[in-house]
Amino acid sequence: MKMLINVPETVVADALRGLAAAHPELTVDVENRVIVRRDAPVAGKVGLVSGGGSGHEPLHGGFVGPGMLSAACPGEVFTSPVPDQMLRAAAAVDSGAGVLFIVKNYTGDVLNFDMAAELAEDEGIQVAKVLVNDDVAVTDSLYTAGRRGTGATLFVEKIAGAAADEGMPLERVAAIARQVNENSRSFGVALSACSTPAKGSPTFDLPPGELELGIGIHGEPGRERRAMMTSGEIAEAAVEAVVEDLRPRNPVLVLVNGMGATPLLELYGFNAEVHRVLAARGVPVARVLVGNYVTSLDMAGASLTICQADEDMLRLWDAPVKTPGLRWGM
Amino acid sequence: MKMLINVPETVVADALRGLAAAHPELTVDVENRVIVRRDAPVAGKVGLVSGGGSGHEPLHGGFVGPGMLSAACPGEVFTSPVPDQMLRAAAAVDSGAGVLFIVKNYTGDVLNFDMAAELAEDEGIQVAKVLVNDDVAVTDSLYTAGRRGTGATLFVEKIAGAAADEGMPLERVAAIARQVNENSRSFGVALSACSTPAKGSPTFDLPPGELELGIGIHGEPGRERRAMMTSGEIAEAAVEAVVEDLRPRNPVLVLVNGMGATPLLELYGFNAEVHRVLAARGVPVARVLVGNYVTSLDMAGASLTICQADEDMLRLWDAPVKTPGLRWGM
Repeated sequence: MKMLINVPETVVADALRGLAAAHPELTVDVENRVIVRRDAPVAGKVGLVSGGGSGHEPLHGGFVGPGMLSAACPGEVFTSPVPDQMLRAAAAVDSGAGVLFIVKNYTGDVLNFDMAAELAEDEGIQVAKVLVNDDVAVTDSLYTAGRRGTGATLFVEKIAGAAADEGMPLERVAAIARQVNENSRSFGVALSACSTPAKGSPTFDLPPGELELGIGIHGEPGRERRAMMTSGEIAEAAVEAVVEDLRPRNPVLVLVNGMGATPLLELYGFNAEVHRVLAARGVPVARVLVGNYVTSLDMAGASLTICQADEDMLRLWDAPVKTPGLRWGM
Repeated sequence: MKMLINVPETVVADALRGLAAAHPELTVDVENRVIVRRDAPVAGKVGLVSGGGSGHEPLHGGFVGPGMLSAACPGEVFTSPVPDQMLRAAAAVDSGAGVLFIVKNYTGDVLNFDMAAELAEDEGIQVAKVLVNDDVAVTDSLYTAGRRGTGATLFVEKIAGAAADEGMPLERVAAIARQVNENSRSFGVALSACSTPAKGSPTFDLPPGELELGIGIHGEPGRERRAMMTSGEIAEAAVEAVVEDLRPRNPVLVLVNGMGATPLLELYGFNAEVHRVLAARGVPVARVLVGNYVTSLDMAGASLTICQADEDMLRLWDAPVKTPGLRWGM
């Protein structure tokens, strides 16, 4: 598999140099792998720190900025960052109001953020954590005990980021982040496998004419493999999976997310089918986002995330945000 | 090649339905294939209309909104829209201040926009045109007499859109659009071919271990085919191609654009190399944009566009914009 890289060993460092060149409003520590809002710490405001394996861009580094994350820690591709990165990030963003760690539910991330929280508290930084586990496809997987964290991470980071921006205290920001996660569900499909730079070839084998339903963001297995389906059939499967599990009564935020190699033309077409199926099931839609936000390198496919939102969550969703990957109102 | 679609015949209509569902701030006429700002026509302001074959999203439909295009006309995949679409768009956005057609230099687009301009003028709409032809790779191609229009289209649409928003008259908006095009150069590379829905398989054959330098946005041939290169080597080739042709003396706007299937992780790494080479050549960078903006369906690869910008152009570039694909300041 051909890649636009120098050598696999420098892929993450090269990307961080490029992020720094494109975004002078961020402080990018390439050596220590921490991306921080240039104006951090912001007096009186809770700091938000997330991170995880690289290869899911713009998640998380592309969501650092006013109204969203205070800092992000990128690991190697599909590999958890280490506690030292998280500790540095926490120290850089803590104004004394405390720090919220937003952790996707993968074993390595959970262990390392736990350790970083202990280290940070030893240094007098107050830390709360929220675990994101929105993927309804499987309960346990290669990488996870329990459900995986995927698209809901964007909703958690945006809404909790707005709550922090409003000056809410740590326990309130953490409670809102947990509320967003509890009200979110995701389901993904893969039309092709992705290739990591280190391996240089597809991480699994998906024959022509088949797709994988319930795929994870590292290409880990899903619920089942089937003969290729239409966009409408895939929308029916994805909407059924998330709606049956969540059973929303309020209007939902919708994220139609590309896995990396699916054209935007196709994602918009898929969004039309998702809306058709949601309407048929009587689920009202409050807001919609279509694009590549939580990706899996060059995987073809898409995921659907819905988040049942009350008035407060909608207000926080609509609040201004200014990051490389998500921006409105400023 | 597997695709997230229903049937090839409805790909464009499905995408328009999905765009409408995601963006209530746009008026999307699915039947007649015209996307218009909901508040058009804007009293006293010049209207901007662009369009071209689908498959390059977010170009052009994703660039409709305040501060950029007033309307866009999507054709079938890689096929020019028809004059009737352009005429409808012009009529929808003309406030009496006239309409600027922004036309990428492909034979079909040029002919159809010419015909639409005549029809519009017959209806009393004043029309000016700007031809975008920034691609330095080849002079004539399968689709073009002269140079092809690619990444500079984004710069033209953004900067001319801001000029129209400031209330400049038609001839001034057209002059600025031409100035942007004249000061822009692009060069693209493909690591893989793209597959159109109608064909269902790659549009050309690119063997493992080779890349195509100077590729067009429809996969049409470039300058040469070579053994696979590193990101740094590709940046050297791309920067040399655009800088030797433009020989900029002012700082440049930089667009590091993904062709559709290249991970953002790789695009940021490529951006780092582009900046390294520009610095070595003494070309100062004023602004940077990294992402998938002018795509070729599921092609892997990237293009580089630079635009030499004076103070006026920079001010117009920085002005607020609110579209699905490009947004800041509002």
